[in-house]
Parts: sequence; structure tokens; C-alpha cells
Amino acid sequence: MKVDGKAMRSIWLEPDGWSVGAIDQTALPHRLATARLTTLDEAAHAIRAMLIRGAPLIGATAAYGMCLALRADASDEAIERAYATLIATRPTAINLRWALDEMVAAVRNRPRGERVAAAYRRAGEICEEDIAINSAIGRNGLPLIAAIAQRKKPGDPVNVLTHCNAGWLAAVDVGTATAPIYLAHDSGIAVHVFADETRPRNQGASLTAWELGQHGVPHTVIADNTGGHLMQHGLVDLVIVGTDRVAANGDVCNKIGTYLKALAARDNNVPFYVALPSPTIDFTVADGVADIPIEQREADELATMTGRTGDGRIETVRVVPEHSPVANYAFDVTPARLVTGLITERGVIAASRAGLVGAFPDRAGAAK
Amino acid sequence: MKVDGKAMRSIWLEPDGWSVGAIDQTALPHRLATARLTTLDEAAHAIRAMLIRGAPLIGATAAYGMCLALRADASDEAIERAYATLIATRPTAINLRWALDEMVAAVRNRPRGERVAAAYRRAGEICEEDIAINSAIGRNGLPLIAAIAQRKKPGDPVNVLTHCNAGWLAAVDVGTATAPIYLAHDSGIAVHVFADETRPRNQGASLTAWELGQHGVPHTVIADNTGGHLMQHGLVDLVIVGTDRVAANGDVCNKIGTYLKALAARDNNVPFYVALPSPTIDFTVADGVADIPIEQREADELATMTGRTGDGRIETVRVVPEHSPVANYAFDVTPARLVTGLITERGVIAASRAGLVGAFPDRAGAAK
Repeated sequence: MKVDGKAMRSIWLEPDGWSVGAIDQTALPHRLATARLTTLDEAAHAIRAMLIRGAPLIGATAAYGMCLALRADASDEAIERAYATLIATRPTAINLRWALDEMVAAVRNRPRGERVAAAYRRAGEICEEDIAINSAIGRNGLPLIAAIAQRKKPGDPVNVLTHCNAGWLAAVDVGTATAPIYLAHDSGIAVHVFADETRPRNQGASLTAWELGQHGVPHTVIADNTGGHLMQHGLVDLVIVGTDRVAANGDVCNKIGTYLKALAARDNNVPFYVALPSPTIDFTVADGVADIPIEQREADELATMTGRTGDGRIETVRVVPEHSPVANYAFDVTPARLVTGLITERGVIAASRAGLVGAFPDRAGAAK
Repeated sequence: MKVDGKAMRSIWLEPDGWSVGAIDQTALPHRLATARLTTLDEAAHAIRAMLIRGAPLIGATAAYGMCLALRADASDEAIERAYATLIATRPTAINLRWALDEMVAAVRNRPRGERVAAAYRRAGEICEEDIAINSAIGRNGLPLIAAIAQRKKPGDPVNVLTHCNAGWLAAVDVGTATAPIYLAHDSGIAVHVFADETRPRNQGASLTAWELGQHGVPHTVIADNTGGHLMQHGLVDLVIVGTDRVAANGDVCNKIGTYLKALAARDNNVPFYVALPSPTIDFTVADGVADIPIEQREADELATMTGRTGDGRIETVRVVPEHSPVANYAFDVTPARLVTGLITERGVIAASRAGLVGAFPDRAGAAK
């Protein structure tokens, strides 16, 4: 999507043909910085330290991490080590495992001399597939927004609430939750986005607001606490969020706080949609609420806040008393019963085993 | 309650017998600063700029603000002007109006020469009544915690989740939501508090965590997004929050985000209690969700964050992109149907007209 009026992706192959460029998302919204990844360890660090984040982009970065590992050592043992290193970076996003499995499948039965080229080929495909999938999500989600727009007075925007960042910064391009929003906006439908701040890492305030602003989509940043009040007073027409993993029963794991918005949507008859590429489905997990592992991250993410001072310096300040303990759960699971529908590359489907298996029998079968 | 091991209140009459001391809550948790209020304008500023906040404390401060106004001019016109100035400081907390009405009633039929003394007498009574009421709330709420403690293994704490600060910093002392918690703790019942950070002003992280820590109550600061996940996994035994205004139908207005926690409590069968002194009841509002005015505050409260740097400086940093609009609603209204009970100075009652009128027929009658 657009940055300063020019098209940009979140990750790319550098002109040297082997090193990997990516937007360093920890510097946003204050500065557009890029990182160059040249080794497995740099790729693993970029995922762990959240220079890059978002389920689809984690998968794409892991794919290139495998390429960088193979460049240094294309042996079977090196592939195993790289897999172990990368899979350990983030426990919740299932795209990570999916992408690594794809990469191993692409190289393991080849002679060593062909592995590096095959890896780069598959990593590139994974990125292009991500964009194609997200574009299809956009086309499939667009009618949901268009139908609401038709019921509105001309010029009154469709108000979409989203949580965290499931935008193009979370994917290679286009985004998942944002795909129907960008398509609606680019098609001339008036759309306005309420972007949840998304504590503790502020991905909504620092990433979603930034990318919507760069692309010219009207939006308003709100505290995570605000969505219930807005829905109660008819100020939200629909909710669209992304997801890090969807279980076989349709339970949706996403950024902590998503469940609270789903409850508010249900209480106020606001449609609650989840946009996802099929690699985010985990048919091996039968019950999402009970069985999806929830990552706990370091206390400082909540206890401190980084931003720009009035005179332009980047500072980190502590906002919690020195001796108060902090708990920092990164995700929660929204039960399928609260989800109006899943927007996938194969259409809008029910958040249920029947819905998922019906649309993706190929993936459901492969998981057995 | 205790600060550095010594008893302290949030507001007090200075030794000079007329000026008013208060903790400057904007400096917490990093520094214990106090403010001295000597004029009506200083009192109004302290409320507006939230040096003091919390429904009961707003009432107490407004009462002393009226005293300071009368000291300068004890005429009927001055009383009216002071009333108008103070009532305009915050639109949502009903205790403000209640305290000002009490003050006017205490002085209006007296000769000018007696008004100042009568005002200080009534303001002092309002403070002592607040403490007596909150102590009764503590005694009435204690059995709710004690009953859960009895079902637990010895040493396993009762986990209470609270939102914002309805602690002694929000009142003159003891607090409302915290009253049963402090009493349980002081009685030797193991209790642990999950303190919601409470964006955008962070009263949970900066005030609730601080006062619980000073008094020695075990607690954990969490992002506002976290409560649903905790309740889903059985980690919260009950929720207790305060309120800025309870409507005649039992709807509860409180800090933005409270409604989301009430929804999560209902979805997980966690009891959701609201602690309130009776001056917080507004029998003139029939329907809380529809009719309680919701204060909108300035964007910077959300767009920036103030805290302490690693080397001890207090800095304010911006966390939202420069050109992104921000909406900052300060309160929301939790429908009575989601409230398990109201903990008042006259017992735990139903959140309904019948419950409120049954316990407070005197106030219900006075509002007609």
C-alpha cells in the first residue's frame, strides 16, 4: 500500500538478490526505518523483538530466515536447527509453523546444491500468495461494507472498528482485516475506521493509524476501553479483526482484548467478522479456548511506553510503580459463538468446524 | 490508608484552619506531591485538571471550594457564582452536584457573618461522612470476599479485578471498591488484586497499584485488554468497581471500559459488584445508558503518555501519529442487567429501581 504516496511492502528481497529488507515496525509511527536481514539469527531476532510482527508477516519472515540459514549451510542438520530456532520465536501464530513446513517440503528432497535457490523461490511464492490471498479476502469482504453503505445516507461513512494491526504491515501487503477496508476506500465507498490503541504494544495507535493515514483512509484512534460505549450508541457498523490462529472449531485467537470487543458486538447486535488467510487455520487444535497456547511477554512492554517528546527525541518512560508486578498476556481467544463470520480467500464462512472443513477440505485432510 | 507506613488522607484542612491540602495525583506513582488550595479558582482547577479525581473526592473538594469562595465573598451572588464555577468542572460525577447542594443548604439561610464557619463545618462533615460510608461499604462487602476465601485452599488468594481507581485516592479515605479489599487484607484474608491499567489516564497503573502497594496488598497490573482472558481461565473470583453515577434504574456509569469487564464477567459467571456511597445515586436519571452525559476530554490524554525515564526525569511522549484524530470518552454506562449487586453503606442491594428505592427511600423521595 502507499507510504508518502508511493507503493511499499512490509518485506522484500534486496537488489543483491539474497538479503532481506523489512520495515522496522518498532520505529513507527515516528520514523520509517528499514532493517536488512542477512543471517538466520537476524531473522529470528526480527521476529522475537517484533521488528516485524503480524501472523502472515511472521510466516514470510521465517521463510526468508530459512533461506538465509541455507545460504550458510544447506545440510539436513542445518535445516533442522533453523526450523527449531525460528519456530521458538513466537508460540501463538500458526502461520510460522505453516511457512516453515512449506519451506522444508520445498527443499528437503533436493540435492544440497539446489536447496538455496529452491528456498528463495518458495519464500518468494509465499509472499506473492499472501498478497493474492489478501486481495481475495478484500474482494470477499467488500460486499459486507458495501451493503451497509447502501443503507446509509450518501456521504455518511461506514464505521468499522478494528483491534491491533491486521493491516498490510502485518502481512506482506494489503493486510487481512484491512483488505476489505482499503478496497472499499479505493472503490469510493465512504469508510471510517476506529483503531483501538491496543495496549500494551500500541499496534493500533502506532501501526494501524499510521498505515491508514498514509493511504488516506479516515480514522480515529481510541483507547481499547472505548469500543463498548461506541457500539452501545450505534457508532460502529461492523467489527473486522485479524487472527493469529483459528482452531478447528472456529475459535479465534487474536491480540489480547479481541474477546472483549466480540462480547460488546454481540451485546449490541454489531456484526463481528474475522479476516484470515487459510494458513492461519490450525485443524490440529480442536478447542481454541482450551488449547491454543497464549504467549506471555515481558513486563516492560506494559510497564513502559516509548514515544516522541515535544522536541523530537524518542524516549521510553515507565508508567507503573517501581515495585508493582505486571502480567502481560499477548493474546486471547474469542469463542466461535461470538463470531458472525470468517472472511477467507474462499469466501465468508461460518466460524465452525463445518464452515472451515467445507471451505478448506484440502487443509483439513492434510492435518489428520 | 498507609503511605510509607503512615496514615494519610487524600484531602485535609491545613493547620492554618482554612486552606486545603490534597495529594496532587498527577505526580503519582513517581512522586508524592501535595497541593495547597487557597481560592475557589484553585479548587476548580484542581478538579478540572484532575490533580484530584474520583467521584467522592470531587465532591469533598467542591465542598471546600465553596468554603474558599465564601471566605472571599459570603454574598448570595458569590454562592451562586461559586456553584456555577464548580458544577462546570466535570459533567459526569453526580457527587459534585450533591456536595454543592449540601453546601448551599448549610449556608443559605444564615447571616453572612456565620456562613464561612458553617461552610467549613459542613465540608468537614462531608469528609467524615465519606469515611464512615466507605467503612460501612467495606463491612458490607467483606462477606462477599470471605465467602470465596472459605471455598479456597488455605493461602490461595481471592482474586479481585478492579478498573480505574475507586480507592482511597478517589475518596477522602478507605475508598469504595477498595473498602472491602482493604478490610479483607487487614483481617488476614489472602486477597490479590488485578488492577486494570485504565487507559487513557492510567489511574489503575499509577494510582490503584500505588495505593495497594503502599498498603501492602498483593496486586498485579494488567492491560485493560486482559480481563476477559483472565476470567475465561478462572483467574478472577469477583470484580469490584466504583462508579461516578448510578441511575434510578441501576445502570452504572463508571470509567470507560467498565462495561466491557461487566460483559466478560457475565460471559464467565464471575460476580460483578459496584461499590458506591449513596450520594452517587442519581434518582433524577431514569435510564442511565440513554441519559447520563458522557464527558469527552482532550485528545492529548490518549495521544501522549507521561512517565519516568530510566534516569529519573519525568517526560511526556506522543504515541499516536501526528495527524491521526483521537476520540477520548471518559466514561461508559454498564446496564443494570450485568451488575450482580451494588455494595452500599446500607448493604448489598439489587441494581434496580426497587433495590435502590428500598434501601434509600429518603434519597428517592428527595429527588422528586
